[in-house]
Amino acid sequence: MQELIERIVAEGEHIGRGIIKLDGFINHQIDPALVLKMGREFARCFAALGVSGVTRVITAEVSGIGPALATANALNVPLVYARKHRPITMPDGFYLATAPSPTKGHIVELMVSPQYLAADDRVLLIDDFLASGLTIDALARLIEQSGATLCGVGCVVEKVFEPGRQRLEPLGVPIVSLAKIDLDDEGQMHVY
Amino acid sequence: MQELIERIVAEGEHIGRGIIKLDGFINHQIDPALVLKMGREFARCFAALGVSGVTRVITAEVSGIGPALATANALNVPLVYARKHRPITMPDGFYLATAPSPTKGHIVELMVSPQYLAADDRVLLIDDFLASGLTIDALARLIEQSGATLCGVGCVVEKVFEPGRQRLEPLGVPIVSLAKIDLDDEGQMHVY
Repeated sequence: MQELIERIVAEGEHIGRGIIKLDGFINHQIDPALVLKMGREFARCFAALGVSGVTRVITAEVSGIGPALATANALNVPLVYARKHRPITMPDGFYLATAPSPTKGHIVELMVSPQYLAADDRVLLIDDFLASGLTIDALARLIEQSGATLCGVGCVVEKVFEPGRQRLEPLGVPIVSLAKIDLDDEGQMHVY
Repeated sequence: MQELIERIVAEGEHIGRGIIKLDGFINHQIDPALVLKMGREFARCFAALGVSGVTRVITAEVSGIGPALATANALNVPLVYARKHRPITMPDGFYLATAPSPTKGHIVELMVSPQYLAADDRVLLIDDFLASGLTIDALARLIEQSGATLCGVGCVVEKVFEPGRQRLEPLGVPIVSLAKIDLDDEGQMHVY
């Protein structure tokens, strides 16, 4: 997605140890027009890959919400965001998966109420970054618990220097990223 | 906002102690079409109240992000969401305010990078619920730290049986809610 690539080149920053800062338009400040375009682009890419009949989009709070909401809007289906802290409104019997957070250094719990994910759902999983793939893999296991069908994985930015794509390939679904970032030996970003 | 009121009447639930569950379309699952309409309605209401020249919308993660993103989109300005856990990408010198969380029972920190909030900003503050008003008041103090001008407060649902509106009145800005919920002595919801 050319506009996204140009924005990453202009504003993205490798702050060390593979951490890419995109706080100006995805992770702290959000550019609404850009994020809505991401949603339309995900919808277009998955349709071109033959993915159809999606009934729900799923992401994990927090930074996946923008692009996932935009994708859900483009597909005219609800968005469900997995909670990391159980709200008092969540009933017992929720689906739960855990993933280590490489940037936060602890285990993250991901919870979805069975009220909003059912065995007849066809689900697109959307997140901001594909890096280790551990969060997305945890969400995929959570979808599996519910009996729903995972139809595809979309991420705004793929760090190709991390093993996320390889980790997710056994899921056997299309993996779409709107921009890819590689790092050279000097730590310079290459965006494409 | 009639569509929102009807949705709360149909799906909202008072689960006790003043806690209103709206997980089906705001707080866990989001209806994208409804949330985009909320954004347009906030833009229309604030314009009708004479609020102009808004440069940024601010909310707190997590559940404010949907309606705040929709409002930012309607106004064609960026959305900034205050972080509750400091990401490693956030530089020193961030704005910080704290609020007790009545539903979580601990102190919540709210952080915004000075990169995305400046003294010449004119800010709309959008959140999902206006209840105690403590979170919104903390965000208002954070905006004050930055020197930016708070132009208005918008909340999707106002619990009129809690003192939020009274707490925020000293801010001296318009307070807009798209739906109001009251509880009678039997704990039945009245939505208007």
